[in-house]
Amino acid sequence: MTDSDNLSAIFTPKSVAVIGASTSPEKLGFQILKNIRDAGFKGPIYPVNPKARAILDLPCYPSIGAVEGAPELAVIIVPATAVPATLADCGAKGVKGAIVISGGFSESGPEGEALQRQALEVARTHKMRMVGPNCQGVNNPYHGLCASWPLITMRGAIAVVSQSGTVAAALMDWAAQEGIGVSGLVSMGNRADVDEADLIEHFDGDPQTRAIALYIEGVKNGPRFLTAARRARKPIVVLKPGRTEKGRQAAESHTKSLAGRDEVYQGAFRQFGICRAETLHELYDFSKALAYLRRPPGRRLLIVTSSGGCGVLAADVAAGEGLDVAPLPEAVASQLRASLPRHFVVNNPLDLTGDANSRLYKDVLAAAKGAFDVAAVIFGDPIVGASEVIERDRPELVIYLGGADVEREEGRLLHARGVPVFPTPERGMRALAQLVRFGRPVEKARP
Amino acid sequence: MTDSDNLSAIFTPKSVAVIGASTSPEKLGFQILKNIRDAGFKGPIYPVNPKARAILDLPCYPSIGAVEGAPELAVIIVPATAVPATLADCGAKGVKGAIVISGGFSESGPEGEALQRQALEVARTHKMRMVGPNCQGVNNPYHGLCASWPLITMRGAIAVVSQSGTVAAALMDWAAQEGIGVSGLVSMGNRADVDEADLIEHFDGDPQTRAIALYIEGVKNGPRFLTAARRARKPIVVLKPGRTEKGRQAAESHTKSLAGRDEVYQGAFRQFGICRAETLHELYDFSKALAYLRRPPGRRLLIVTSSGGCGVLAADVAAGEGLDVAPLPEAVASQLRASLPRHFVVNNPLDLTGDANSRLYKDVLAAAKGAFDVAAVIFGDPIVGASEVIERDRPELVIYLGGADVEREEGRLLHARGVPVFPTPERGMRALAQLVRFGRPVEKARP
Repeated sequence: MTDSDNLSAIFTPKSVAVIGASTSPEKLGFQILKNIRDAGFKGPIYPVNPKARAILDLPCYPSIGAVEGAPELAVIIVPATAVPATLADCGAKGVKGAIVISGGFSESGPEGEALQRQALEVARTHKMRMVGPNCQGVNNPYHGLCASWPLITMRGAIAVVSQSGTVAAALMDWAAQEGIGVSGLVSMGNRADVDEADLIEHFDGDPQTRAIALYIEGVKNGPRFLTAARRARKPIVVLKPGRTEKGRQAAESHTKSLAGRDEVYQGAFRQFGICRAETLHELYDFSKALAYLRRPPGRRLLIVTSSGGCGVLAADVAAGEGLDVAPLPEAVASQLRASLPRHFVVNNPLDLTGDANSRLYKDVLAAAKGAFDVAAVIFGDPIVGASEVIERDRPELVIYLGGADVEREEGRLLHARGVPVFPTPERGMRALAQLVRFGRPVEKARP
Repeated sequence: MTDSDNLSAIFTPKSVAVIGASTSPEKLGFQILKNIRDAGFKGPIYPVNPKARAILDLPCYPSIGAVEGAPELAVIIVPATAVPATLADCGAKGVKGAIVISGGFSESGPEGEALQRQALEVARTHKMRMVGPNCQGVNNPYHGLCASWPLITMRGAIAVVSQSGTVAAALMDWAAQEGIGVSGLVSMGNRADVDEADLIEHFDGDPQTRAIALYIEGVKNGPRFLTAARRARKPIVVLKPGRTEKGRQAAESHTKSLAGRDEVYQGAFRQFGICRAETLHELYDFSKALAYLRRPPGRRLLIVTSSGGCGVLAADVAAGEGLDVAPLPEAVASQLRASLPRHFVVNNPLDLTGDANSRLYKDVLAAAKGAFDVAAVIFGDPIVGASEVIERDRPELVIYLGGADVEREEGRLLHARGVPVFPTPERGMRALAQLVRFGRPVEKARP
């Protein structure tokens, strides 16, 4: 994380107080404290709870005022009515950032709205940045800071910014399960202070982040959002529901933000080069492709597969997305005809059939090198050694299915090398289409 | 499996010969023999290979003629040119069914086509039913018969019938990983004899099967297919690529079958009540919903969730699919207002917020019972005890995400009880929409 923005107390604090830390394992005040400790936070952790002497073997403080020194970050899980005073105590103590988990603010009616305004005023007075309220916290795996739940620590290149804590947690969990991880996670909640514009700026400047995955039901501040999106040098993928009237109503009820007309958003996304996902899996897939792969130089696509059926499914989606499943150049075709067993049909998709093995994939990809802008490599069988077929300096997108335990092992090896693997031909091709449109260009070799 | 059709030698043979069994672990002739043995096939297994004395400790026979007695089923993995003679030997021996794995037939040119015609003639002469050639075999987990790869043995209620071996294997693997399993799998290959119409009839009569998942690139015999589909009492889900011209060309190149105009298929699917999936994940999801859930009595949908964001995503897709995210009846609303903490907004979607636990879900679903046709229950957090919330006799569709290890454990428990769990709001709602359209009705209680 950079220190160039003023969110360093939120993302890379030297010390953390957990105000409203609890002794009851079923309470968030316990779970968050435990997650911060178990994620391996290196600095001091101060649980604050006037009724406990120690929680999880960490000595407990009766108030933030009683903590020695000044914690940089306070994670706050106290009843909503106590939040403004708690923030004031934090400010007086010199705390620089606050993550307010507690609900009961603008999402719950006029009294909550008043409390939220008060909380924001206090934070502003003390020049504290605040995430939330009514949120699922922040996770920075590069700083051992899991001020959120569930406990996930896997490091990677996707930044997750979300109005929904569950959406954020689901993405981070999928990334951890696949062994690719995230660069950071922020559940924004009611966005009283820190919002998507701040976080786009922050993660755009963060060296670990290579793509930003954003779930919003409505932007907080249109012009600021568009400025941040326009300035960002990294791909932004957004999932924004509210295409239907029912969805829009549900969104406005959920976060009390104006969801707005979908066409307005759609137009803005298009104008500012924001990649729009239609589903949660697409939000994940597109972010994964954009974070871990470079933009191919064009649309000419070679599909290489051991499964004719998967080749057909891929070609269908690719063509629908405007990718060019182009005929094989004659030079490549004759080279392949000469080297492949004679019952092979040399074509695009190139079906290596059930006889395929990793050697055959290697030979074919080497022969086709340079003749296409990108290759979709579909392993549709238990192909041992599949992970060794893929070369990072060639534009290749990998899909693996139907390989059971071999697939899981080779997928693990590929993800460990930073090569993303997609689970079906359709999801892979949809992601590839976004990569062609929104991908980061290949870095020029230095002279 | 029933014996009422003439495919019993294929699905429930008393004994199996593996002709072309190999001593080399990298060869299919070894892997299939091993999978048949390791899946726990109860009857005698006869490897046939003139050059080996034993494979995997099973005594080897120089020819099918040398086997004592008559194996009911022959799995054939010999070069294409040797297949007609091998089938003739099988016929002479009294073999009743053959699965021809070998490729090199109609998919590879005119010579192959001639070989395939010969093979079919031999099979017909001897009244043998034949699956393939050029296929990935048959798996009947209820008979311990994995004459296919990879080795998967999990039993369930979805029958998988596919022109693509990989598509079949992928579906079966997903079902096994989730602990729901399949009732059978057939990779049809070139469909010289057994085709999708035979298999729809077979699985429609199979007591273990509750839904049929079908991947086809083109039907072999239109009228027979439509007759079988019309007569079937069980839901059929079909994935048929070829919406784009490129996809259609790729399909025709893959299986040398006429893919045909998509509109013709679309019209037929609609007329005969066949559920069409757009992607491989949908083929799986829809089959899972239709196999494991009953049709709700109507379209009035209550969405209950711990995640406001997931409620919004679900409402958006549900509305787009024509489901009715209806207001809460006043009686239910006042009961919920009385029992829920006062900061809850009583609405549909009903957002139980991050405070949700399994008790709260139980109470809410009990209060709403009878007021809606179906409930979408979205667990959007680590909700311990989620699996105990769901009652099989209520129309409920479960979605679980963002719960990390708790999600995986509760999902496992739910699947073990035969309750399908969907991974995202969108996939769950799309599956629910199919269930409303194509689901099996609730069985009437006996008087």
